[in-house]
Amino acid sequence: MVTFTRERSEAGVTERLFDLTVAGERVPAVIWSPEGAKTPRPLILMGHGGSQHKKIGTLAARARQYAQRLGYATLAIDAPGHGDRISREQAEKLAKEVGDRVRGVGGTGGPSAEMLKTMAERTQRAVPEWKDALDAAQSLEFVGSGGPVGYWGVSMGTAIGVPFVASEPRIKCAVFGLAGLRPGAAAFEQAANAIHIPVEFVFQWEDAVAPRETGIALFNAFGSKEKTMHINPGAHVEIPNFEGGSWQAFYVRHLGVAKEHARAAA
Amino acid sequence: MVTFTRERSEAGVTERLFDLTVAGERVPAVIWSPEGAKTPRPLILMGHGGSQHKKIGTLAARARQYAQRLGYATLAIDAPGHGDRISREQAEKLAKEVGDRVRGVGGTGGPSAEMLKTMAERTQRAVPEWKDALDAAQSLEFVGSGGPVGYWGVSMGTAIGVPFVASEPRIKCAVFGLAGLRPGAAAFEQAANAIHIPVEFVFQWEDAVAPRETGIALFNAFGSKEKTMHINPGAHVEIPNFEGGSWQAFYVRHLGVAKEHARAAA
Repeated sequence: MVTFTRERSEAGVTERLFDLTVAGERVPAVIWSPEGAKTPRPLILMGHGGSQHKKIGTLAARARQYAQRLGYATLAIDAPGHGDRISREQAEKLAKEVGDRVRGVGGTGGPSAEMLKTMAERTQRAVPEWKDALDAAQSLEFVGSGGPVGYWGVSMGTAIGVPFVASEPRIKCAVFGLAGLRPGAAAFEQAANAIHIPVEFVFQWEDAVAPRETGIALFNAFGSKEKTMHINPGAHVEIPNFEGGSWQAFYVRHLGVAKEHARAAA
Repeated sequence: MVTFTRERSEAGVTERLFDLTVAGERVPAVIWSPEGAKTPRPLILMGHGGSQHKKIGTLAARARQYAQRLGYATLAIDAPGHGDRISREQAEKLAKEVGDRVRGVGGTGGPSAEMLKTMAERTQRAVPEWKDALDAAQSLEFVGSGGPVGYWGVSMGTAIGVPFVASEPRIKCAVFGLAGLRPGAAAFEQAANAIHIPVEFVFQWEDAVAPRETGIALFNAFGSKEKTMHINPGAHVEIPNFEGGSWQAFYVRHLGVAKEHARAAA
């Protein structure tokens, strides 16, 4: 049973906080849905980026828009070592480290062996956390089980999302991006190969974190028959706004809209 | 003055045929617009592919949709050596040749020197034809001069479209695709460099006509600050249907909609 720790509504959207316990650790979660929703609807899982948290502005804004426009529910959780799972001092240190990487400070030679180890451990913990969070969301009357589920996550949200989505048959389509497949990343490559759902993959052409050839290698690795790669000029944090419109169209195409919105649109 | 040779309306869309004379040669043209339109509106120029003609099914269907949904006018002309400018026998021979190339029959080594010469001559003739056709369209009361103009053309529509758009300041945004920049194609590269308007570039990852590296080279060559490349799996003629939705969103973003549609949407 899910116990909400906080609940507030604004502009027709209700935001509810709750905590999961996974492998003995608290995992803070948030779910947005149309105010007053009581019946099943499409669900989006949104994985935040490195140094960010479950309620980061861009993610929360999209979740609210999806609730208002499409009647969707959107679930987000703090990744291991992120958000409410670390202290403010730790978060500030992390933001500086990630900011340096994104700006290419220290070169683009790729992550160190220590970073790769940290990232692998984080993903290993994050995948079961996402599964438990999805179980919890589907136990809610305004989400329901058996409804269509989509995933969204770029950068660290792709690093975690690819192995998660590969192992989670409930997910029907996924947006990934801002990440690449480096030579030797065999487990990540196998996970990408194992994904067969429709994928929209957004990539920045001057990304200091993911060189062009690694982005194309990851696109090639996805096992999906329907997969599309959107390349735009600019740095890691410069995805053009219009890609947001493309993500929305992608979800509507594959997940439909909530029943009450289908009636309104008809 | 434009004299229409045929005019018919269906499902709220009027299709009008007319002829231009450019450098002593007849250039057959067609323009679609909302039935009863009398005031200026956005105009799309659509360049058909090799062996096709100005009223090819996919192109005409899109023109009709744009008229119905957005209130646009759409102009198409037969390219040199295409459509009503050649005999039925010539058209059948051309369709076979292009079909073989698209299916990779004869290898993907690129066009022969003779083909390159034919293509260069065709482009050289097509550019002034497009300019005259645009002049003619803008003299019509239901198009008007000074309104926003977009270009759409993939494959041969890009081979001709890139030099045309590079030299035509009236065009505000362009969809290109299914074409690449081969080493040594200096004039084509210069034209791509000279384009600074927003570009959406659609590319098929298993295109027998345009190898991957040439597609990426063409994307890189566009001088535009806003440019986006959409890569999808499959062969030359297998652009997924959802790209059509993306083109429509692209034009709406950059050209707006016709006044009467803006009122309806408000």
